[in-house]
Amino acid sequence: MIRVLVTGGTFDKTYDEIRGRLSFGDTHLPEMLRLGRSRVELTIETLMMIDSLDMTDADRASIVRRCAECPETRIVVTHGTDTMVETARALAAGVSGKSVVLTGAMIPYAFGSSDGMFNLGSALSFAQVLPHGIYVAMNGQCFRWDAVRKNRETGVFETLS
Amino acid sequence: MIRVLVTGGTFDKTYDEIRGRLSFGDTHLPEMLRLGRSRVELTIETLMMIDSLDMTDADRASIVRRCAECPETRIVVTHGTDTMVETARALAAGVSGKSVVLTGAMIPYAFGSSDGMFNLGSALSFAQVLPHGIYVAMNGQCFRWDAVRKNRETGVFETLS
Amino acid sequence: MIRVLVTGGTFDKTYDEIRGRLSFGDTHLPEMLRLGRSRVELTIETLMMIDSLDMTDADRASIVRRCAECPETRIVVTHGTDTMVETARALAAGVSGKSVVLTGAMIPYAFGSSDGMFNLGSALSFAQVLPHGIYVAMNGQCFRWDAVRKNRETGVFETLS
Amino acid sequence: MIRVLVTGGTFDKTYDEIRGRLSFGDTHLPEMLRLGRSRVELTIETLMMIDSLDMTDADRASIVRRCAECPETRIVVTHGTDTMVETARALAAGVSGKSVVLTGAMIPYAFGSSDGMFNLGSALSFAQVLPHGIYVAMNGQCFRWDAVRKNRETGVFETLS
Repeated sequence: MIRVLVTGGTFDKTYDEIRGRLSFGDTHLPEMLRLGRSRVELTIETLMMIDSLDMTDADRASIVRRCAECPETRIVVTHGTDTMVETARALAAGVSGKSVVLTGAMIPYAFGSSDGMFNLGSALSFAQVLPHGIYVAMNGQCFRWDAVRKNRETGVFETLS
Repeated sequence: MIRVLVTGGTFDKTYDEIRGRLSFGDTHLPEMLRLGRSRVELTIETLMMIDSLDMTDADRASIVRRCAECPETRIVVTHGTDTMVETARALAAGVSGKSVVLTGAMIPYAFGSSDGMFNLGSALSFAQVLPHGIYVAMNGQCFRWDAVRKNRETGVFETLS
Repeated sequence: MIRVLVTGGTFDKTYDEIRGRLSFGDTHLPEMLRLGRSRVELTIETLMMIDSLDMTDADRASIVRRCAECPETRIVVTHGTDTMVETARALAAGVSGKSVVLTGAMIPYAFGSSDGMFNLGSALSFAQVLPHGIYVAMNGQCFRWDAVRKNRETGVFETLS
Repeated sequence: MIRVLVTGGTFDKTYDEIRGRLSFGDTHLPEMLRLGRSRVELTIETLMMIDSLDMTDADRASIVRRCAECPETRIVVTHGTDTMVETARALAAGVSGKSVVLTGAMIPYAFGSSDGMFNLGSALSFAQVLPHGIYVAMNGQCFRWDAVRKNRETGVFETLS
């Protein structure tokens, strides 16, 4: 049984056709899981719906608290990519005895050509089998929280050497 | 390093607009990996491009042989869903010391609303971390080869009890 | 006010994921019009849901009858491309004082990469402004019923010289 | 023979995955026409690539000049929806003896669920048959330049009464 904690990020950006700009509405997670014919037993919980560049220490603390307190020991957190590694670090300091996998997308799911479906399938799979720890699952790869950084120029997550 | 063996199946069905019916062309795997921004190190090899209902014992033997002979110990096989479990059984009899994950799709990738991206992300992830053995990864879940069947009425893979 | 008569064709083909083949369900017209943000006043009526290669003389007669009898003088008929010109000929013989535009698609709408949205926008527009007569609207072009043929090899509609 | 003048607008907005925001790159027109299997004879010319809220009087004057000077008498202008009617008014004052149809989209084409394909098919069709004049083609409808306004709250173009 997995808990999926939604925090927003590119994953869930949508296009506001009246204002002509990107915005957040409800999470696309249930639709994505339906499309993926997912049969993974899980509970979705929306914690916030924000761009990760706008995430405060208080937001981060609430994600840590929720991961620590929820009954599940296997957790997927959807998150903006820009500060995903920072939140992973906070989780490593505050959560133990659980497998927490952060994931996100470079392209909004609503754009059709999304990497979100691929990353979601990947994150849910890693979360089912990895030993306890905090991980970042992006680009089909899985990194330990202390061995990854986002390359801001290429948009790619890479191993920290 | 993962080897991806392509055998066809719904994953790779495309629409022949001159004849107005489904057909097989080149595999969509490279395009799907690009779309998913995959950074997994892998080699793609097309073994055949057929509907799994048309798969013969000789076809199955060639998949087993290729899995046994290729240098990689982590392998993903894309396969039609109808006889995926049968091929898994053949692989269990003929391949040892490797992690082989079979996956597929219920909806062609070319149809847009595909579960293929989700399953591909899932299969590549399971293949990276599972111990040696033969597995079926569908619907975000992963089954041992001898503990799964496809429910033909619902199209869902379920645990064999 | 336009009447849209649905007869099936590639436009409305869908993928039957249990049987793994193309099939017909309900028409996608309402969804397509919603997606296109259409504000054209129209009534949709499904006459049949078949591949145009399977269309009989009786089917064709019922399309002619419906075009002649319905109150609207501006009509769009969605139709398989293979015998679209044959139905246009039947309409020319049996319907007068109305503008009837036949249209279709080479790729099912459900496949995402469809020419259906483009053709639907085109056909509805031609139907609003063309003088009485029977027309085929495909590939952004509009042909009189007696000046067009489908090139079976290229899938393109071309002017009959 | 139609000239298509590209000015940007939602039609051509794309998602900048490094910066995580909407931006303009090359026009999607050629790709859209290929997808629509368009066989309309036309020439595409990109005049600018901007949000129509940023369009200056000088920009507008250059659109008018290009419409007046180009050899074609049938023209489609792709344009942001917010000031489309304003540009139509400028065209009415500066262009005569030509059929000019402005069109756009409420959702970026790159978002998949676009009304752009529908509107493009519609605009190209109206442009082929309407008498000389300046028109706005949106939502499957065609309005004379002096009989239309965009309802900013609903995003719909409506007849000016």
